[in-house]
Amino acid sequence: MKLVLDKQITPDQDNGIQTLLAQDGCVTCRITDAGQQVIGIVKKGTRKPEDYREEPGVAQVLPVSTAHKLVSREFKTESTRVTINNVVVGGDRIVVIAGPCAVESLDQAMTIAKQVKRYGAVLFRGGAYKPRSSPYSFQGLEKEGLKILAKVREETGLGVVTEMTSPSQAPLMEKYVDAVQIGARNMQNFELLKCAGKMRKPVVLKRGLAATIQEWLMSAEYIAAGGNTDIILCERGIRTFEPYTRNTLDLSAIPVLRQLTHLPIVIDPSHATGIREKVSPMARAAVAAGADA
Amino acid sequence: MKLVLDKQITPDQDNGIQTLLAQDGCVTCRITDAGQQVIGIVKKGTRKPEDYREEPGVAQVLPVSTAHKLVSREFKTESTRVTINNVVVGGDRIVVIAGPCAVESLDQAMTIAKQVKRYGAVLFRGGAYKPRSSPYSFQGLEKEGLKILAKVREETGLGVVTEMTSPSQAPLMEKYVDAVQIGARNMQNFELLKCAGKMRKPVVLKRGLAATIQEWLMSAEYIAAGGNTDIILCERGIRTFEPYTRNTLDLSAIPVLRQLTHLPIVIDPSHATGIREKVSPMARAAVAAGADA
Amino acid sequence: MKLVLDKQITPDQDNGIQTLLAQDGCVTCRITDAGQQVIGIVKKGTRKPEDYREEPGVAQVLPVSTAHKLVSREFKTESTRVTINNVVVGGDRIVVIAGPCAVESLDQAMTIAKQVKRYGAVLFRGGAYKPRSSPYSFQGLEKEGLKILAKVREETGLGVVTEMTSPSQAPLMEKYVDAVQIGARNMQNFELLKCAGKMRKPVVLKRGLAATIQEWLMSAEYIAAGGNTDIILCERGIRTFEPYTRNTLDLSAIPVLRQLTHLPIVIDPSHATGIREKVSPMARAAVAAGADA
Amino acid sequence: MKLVLDKQITPDQDNGIQTLLAQDGCVTCRITDAGQQVIGIVKKGTRKPEDYREEPGVAQVLPVSTAHKLVSREFKTESTRVTINNVVVGGDRIVVIAGPCAVESLDQAMTIAKQVKRYGAVLFRGGAYKPRSSPYSFQGLEKEGLKILAKVREETGLGVVTEMTSPSQAPLMEKYVDAVQIGARNMQNFELLKCAGKMRKPVVLKRGLAATIQEWLMSAEYIAAGGNTDIILCERGIRTFEPYTRNTLDLSAIPVLRQLTHLPIVIDPSHATGIREKVSPMARAAVAAGADA
Repeated sequence: MKLVLDKQITPDQDNGIQTLLAQDGCVTCRITDAGQQVIGIVKKGTRKPEDYREEPGVAQVLPVSTAHKLVSREFKTESTRVTINNVVVGGDRIVVIAGPCAVESLDQAMTIAKQVKRYGAVLFRGGAYKPRSSPYSFQGLEKEGLKILAKVREETGLGVVTEMTSPSQAPLMEKYVDAVQIGARNMQNFELLKCAGKMRKPVVLKRGLAATIQEWLMSAEYIAAGGNTDIILCERGIRTFEPYTRNTLDLSAIPVLRQLTHLPIVIDPSHATGIREKVSPMARAAVAAGADA
Repeated sequence: MKLVLDKQITPDQDNGIQTLLAQDGCVTCRITDAGQQVIGIVKKGTRKPEDYREEPGVAQVLPVSTAHKLVSREFKTESTRVTINNVVVGGDRIVVIAGPCAVESLDQAMTIAKQVKRYGAVLFRGGAYKPRSSPYSFQGLEKEGLKILAKVREETGLGVVTEMTSPSQAPLMEKYVDAVQIGARNMQNFELLKCAGKMRKPVVLKRGLAATIQEWLMSAEYIAAGGNTDIILCERGIRTFEPYTRNTLDLSAIPVLRQLTHLPIVIDPSHATGIREKVSPMARAAVAAGADA
Repeated sequence: MKLVLDKQITPDQDNGIQTLLAQDGCVTCRITDAGQQVIGIVKKGTRKPEDYREEPGVAQVLPVSTAHKLVSREFKTESTRVTINNVVVGGDRIVVIAGPCAVESLDQAMTIAKQVKRYGAVLFRGGAYKPRSSPYSFQGLEKEGLKILAKVREETGLGVVTEMTSPSQAPLMEKYVDAVQIGARNMQNFELLKCAGKMRKPVVLKRGLAATIQEWLMSAEYIAAGGNTDIILCERGIRTFEPYTRNTLDLSAIPVLRQLTHLPIVIDPSHATGIREKVSPMARAAVAAGADA
Repeated sequence: MKLVLDKQITPDQDNGIQTLLAQDGCVTCRITDAGQQVIGIVKKGTRKPEDYREEPGVAQVLPVSTAHKLVSREFKTESTRVTINNVVVGGDRIVVIAGPCAVESLDQAMTIAKQVKRYGAVLFRGGAYKPRSSPYSFQGLEKEGLKILAKVREETGLGVVTEMTSPSQAPLMEKYVDAVQIGARNMQNFELLKCAGKMRKPVVLKRGLAATIQEWLMSAEYIAAGGNTDIILCERGIRTFEPYTRNTLDLSAIPVLRQLTHLPIVIDPSHATGIREKVSPMARAAVAAGADA
């Protein structure tokens, strides 16, 4: 349920509504949607929708029927724009995000950053904490990697994005990077999602290897319910029977998400295909299907 | 293995090579590729590649390492163009194919044909023999439907394409339509593929619901091995765990196929998504990824 | 809808009901279920269920709510027993069916048949028409293979089962073998299913590589609707992302099918796993889960 | 690589080998396998296998070719037995583990525990920290739930197992329960796996929704590499296209795992099927296929 407030609402009326909601035990979330003040009620109290309809200052009481409430298009009709270091994701321009799998050294990171910037990238992505399937593989430069990312930003002006694999990394992330990524393997690591919900950085939430669109949106809802609505959804290929590509890029998720959610959408054609020369055609297809980045 | 013939080959030399191949028990297929005469050997005899290298009139002896020989890019480097009623699939222009699921009446088919033609369609597709999952569902108008298709072509000038579900329908297909389609459920109906290989009509081969790209190409090879190389591959969505769309459209198949085969590629965004408003974005994405139709 | 007839129904009453159904344009199927005469109505006329309730000789009028009517447990509560050359599939004993992938020669088939008989097999299965994914692979001994199967039965007493890949093979199948198999790749080859429905031999219907249980039952319904209810369902592994086994054997299909259908169930652990030493444990598991063969 | 030590090795020789390995920078793991002392080398130094072959006290130097080293059957030929509160998993008796999805109250937990004990369960499983797909669902009683589990053990004598969703819960887990479970959604939460590797409690590692057997074993390897080899693998169904059951129980994983790993295997038929009356047949099938619990 959501309350659309009157455009001429007085401060007293506003306070009155908030007091009522609080007394009723509701959990709420306030946003501006297409120029209107909206209060979303994610946990109901005992009062019914019609009880609020008569309150002074309330223009409309509307249902939100989806399980993913705060991230739904029903709750917020206007598309969300997420700003990462002055770059707007979800706006008029297609955003290119590029970088190496792992940050290996300052030299490697800086060289790649300058190259990708020259070819149009406006955000730099590289891993400092690497979720490797083998415990014996290189696990990333960790804090050292984050410092390198901060230096890349300083020197190139590119905003930097990196993966967070544990709530314990949150303070360092807040300090060094512009946005955090939650990887496919952690899409339903709910403790990590709760942590991301309390952060003051945008979150790029990758789709799990075999996650349905509905489960993915519920994971985004975890972050939003924690108070952080700067969320970007990243499709990176789903697991199917086809062995030729590493994963199967599900581009139909783009128009499906557009209808279900107000969050911006980024496509990762590199992880999805796993083959260098398939990246360009799939990136073009992603843009044609309506991706934001 | 393939023999690339000398550009200055004499008729005698040519006959000599063909006699040698025949005596050795080879099964061959002759094509023109990028201005060169090529003889593909799909079933080897006892002579070795080097035995042919010395023959007068042979410029090169090259291996074809893939299991799908005749339809492989290795065998024929030039992209194949398939002509259906004066429309070239695989050429410079994107081809739009449209129509109803089933032909239900002359009136219905004609109305739709005129509409889709107005919006850019150059080929008309409608089902006369319907492969229904239930025996109690409408099974199509059958021969009557084919006649309606022929009338649609006569009146609108659009070439007509329809699904063939049994070898017994081949004579009627030859008579009434411009191209036949082999449906997803029959992609490995090898008797039907063999029949299509002997027909003189282009074949649109849909990918099976859970067919790998390799299996799909092997099914195309069945048709080519029968003597019919006017084959168009149609991706129509694969079966995955995602319930939101009917199938998951695998657009990454386009660049993968481009490298593996010389055959043209058509994308069916309607069957893949099963949701009307997802058809346009996925059609745009298909074109961006390099589809021919 | 089904009509359960009165146990004391008179021939006149019976004729009366049949006349009524015929006049109403119904398509019907008559069976004996748990000692009762039942008429199933697979295609309704204009009369309503209550119109039949009052007819003399009708004990009950019951709905059949599933899309798969004739093969449903709702239609026939009693489990079906299918007899192949004196062997009952669906009875008290577990039936072992064994044999080579393809019949290669009389000698090979006879040697294997004697071995598998010694170890408990009561039916022999071998392919004469092979649905190969490559047109260049051995396609089976065809008619010669069927004759070999007939000789195996003659000499060993084992009933013989083989795959039919085209309606054109039906007359030879009727002549030489005891049961026909419809392969996974042809599970939705509806022309072949219709043909099997008119045959007088039991049909082993394998589940498609990515067929849902519902689709599988609808394919069985095609055969039953044609008049042949001697159908055995064969689970042979479904296609998943797991590369270790060739397919993933879905043993949970056994209890699911038990509830949905009255048809007997056979499990093929060899094709499912594709690894010799996994066949025994999966065969044991199949029996524990309730398989008939 | 692993060094099998001589049965008559002297303490001096043993020390000598360990010094050599340490000087070479190797990471090692020492076990007893079928009565023999074995040193596994999970991270190599610069010395070659043949360099160790000549050392006094070394009986054999054998390769471990799999990526999952410590949990592989190649490393340890003898099957591992994991003891949870006096119950041996991986021994001669089939172990039954049962309980509610979530611990809701002392009364609920105790009632269920007594019931399942009466019917043969020897371990009790219930969730205190619940990984819910919706942030608005009940998230478990948390610490209170763990205390209830401890009381259940006290009163019924049943060992208790519960899911751990964050490294921060480890101290409470060590205090209150007998074994921790890592859920399917956290199978590749590598920070959690590393934490489990340092705990002194057995770990039940559930297979991810779309995890290959190889990935699953690599996650077990994370735990083992941390020093905890009391690991039990739990198959709970994989995600496929089939909608009838919640997941598809992959029982063929049992014989596959038996060959690849020495760890015990438990099957969870309840989560896999999601349908009450399918639990019994699948439990029976699991036992027939060789499951330990």
